[in-house]
Order: sequence, then structure tokens, then C-alpha cells
Amino acid sequence: MNTTSFLDSLKFNDDGLIPAIIQDKDHGRVLMMAWMNRTSIERTLETGFTHFWSRSRQKYWKKGESSGHVQRVLDVATDCDGDTLLIQVEQTGAACHEGYRSCFFRSARNGGAGFEITEPRLEDPEKIYGSRAS
Amino acid sequence: MNTTSFLDSLKFNDDGLIPAIIQDKDHGRVLMMAWMNRTSIERTLETGFTHFWSRSRQKYWKKGESSGHVQRVLDVATDCDGDTLLIQVEQTGAACHEGYRSCFFRSARNGGAGFEITEPRLEDPEKIYGSRAS
Repeated sequence: MNTTSFLDSLKFNDDGLIPAIIQDKDHGRVLMMAWMNRTSIERTLETGFTHFWSRSRQKYWKKGESSGHVQRVLDVATDCDGDTLLIQVEQTGAACHEGYRSCFFRSARNGGAGFEITEPRLEDPEKIYGSRAS
Repeated sequence: MNTTSFLDSLKFNDDGLIPAIIQDKDHGRVLMMAWMNRTSIERTLETGFTHFWSRSRQKYWKKGESSGHVQRVLDVATDCDGDTLLIQVEQTGAACHEGYRSCFFRSARNGGAGFEITEPRLEDPEKIYGSRAS
């Protein structure tokens, strides 16, 4: 192991944030992308569950804190530039607040003129949340 | 197919950009993350090869234009918020300019105090590029 600090090697944007790609380690499915700051990365590493920074709500959130759809962290990697994270997780339930396994359930068709839903909805979002949450 | 425009449903940031996660469709390995604007998405869809917008060089670049390590596009998806892309590709050679298959070759260890290189280097970057390029 290299003892150069992983955390100190990261490059945050002007808002102190770094994008975190979340991947299901078992299936390889990319589940979502959300933003972290240094504190939410530290909480993620300390607790073993993903914690993000909400840009719209300006607050920390633990993924699944209201839905129970938590993400247990298995690996935290960064890229060559140190400005993006890739986090391998074990996902409980649907990652997407719309009830899909992955947030990336829509793909372009016809050169971008249309799109297609590419995976089945796993859960009814009305049954997961009263209103949109994590 | 839904005929609502995929392109018109996307949300770009204040700089007119959207992050694009690039995944190897065969192996599921997340290879890199880079930025696109509307024109580079259109070029990607039209040509079937990834095109990005370089924030540091303020220009378009086709991945692999100097190295030959192109990415043939198999699927372009977006997330529930329309503010991130996930692109499935067939990658020629190493995706990372440092010669690794994936740019995400460093993982945190010891709670973020250190890190570990988690994959072998496939190629000598000196042999791929004269200087750092795509």
C-alpha cells in the first residue's frame, strides 16, 4: 500500500465537490452518480455506507436514509486526474428514486430524437417515498 | 420508442456541459469520466465514436484521435435527472492515458490514508503518446 493520502490526492471543484459514480459490484451495473465533498467521503469511508452532498438541498444525505435502500461500500477508487470517484457497492433494493435498479434506465434511440426505457421498474416509488427523498 | 427527444431532455450545467461515464460493455469496467456538450453528444451519436469537450484545452476531442484507442459507442443512456450520461463502448486498447485499462486504477486503503494500484498497467504511456493527449 502506498501511504500517500488518497484523500489529499483528490481534486475538488470550485464548490468543493467531486462526482461519485456508484457501481453495483456484483452485476457491474452503474447505478447512479452523485456529488461528495471531503466530509461526505470521510463519512462514507468511516461508516461503510455512501454519504453525499445534496447541491439542491445544501445538506448531507446518507443514501437510503428514508427508503432503506442503502449502499454498503466495498471499494472507493479515483481516476488518474483525481477528480472523479468510482465506488463499488452492494445495493439494497432499487437505487433510483423512480423505482428502477439503476438511474440510467433511459437510452437514446434514433440518433437522439427519441429514447427507450431499457429496464423494468422494480418498485413503485409511491410505496417507497411519501415524496421524493433519498 | 418514445419520441420525446432524448437530447432535449438533458440538463447541462452552467458551462453547457454534462458528465459522461464511459463503461466497457463487455467487461462492465467503468473506464473514465469526461465532459460533453450538446455538439459533442451529437457527434458521438452521428459518428458512433465518443467525442468530448476538453475543459482545460477548450476544444473538442475524439477519444483516441492520437493514440488510436477509440471507443465505439454501443449505447447512450441518461439518468432520471437527465444531468449525467452513461455510455457503453467497445474500447480499443487502454482507456487511460497512463496506460491502464481504466482510469480508476487507484483505490483507497486504510480509511483514505493510503491507496493501492488495483490493476496492471497494459501499456507504456511513452509508447502511446509523445506527450499527454487523448
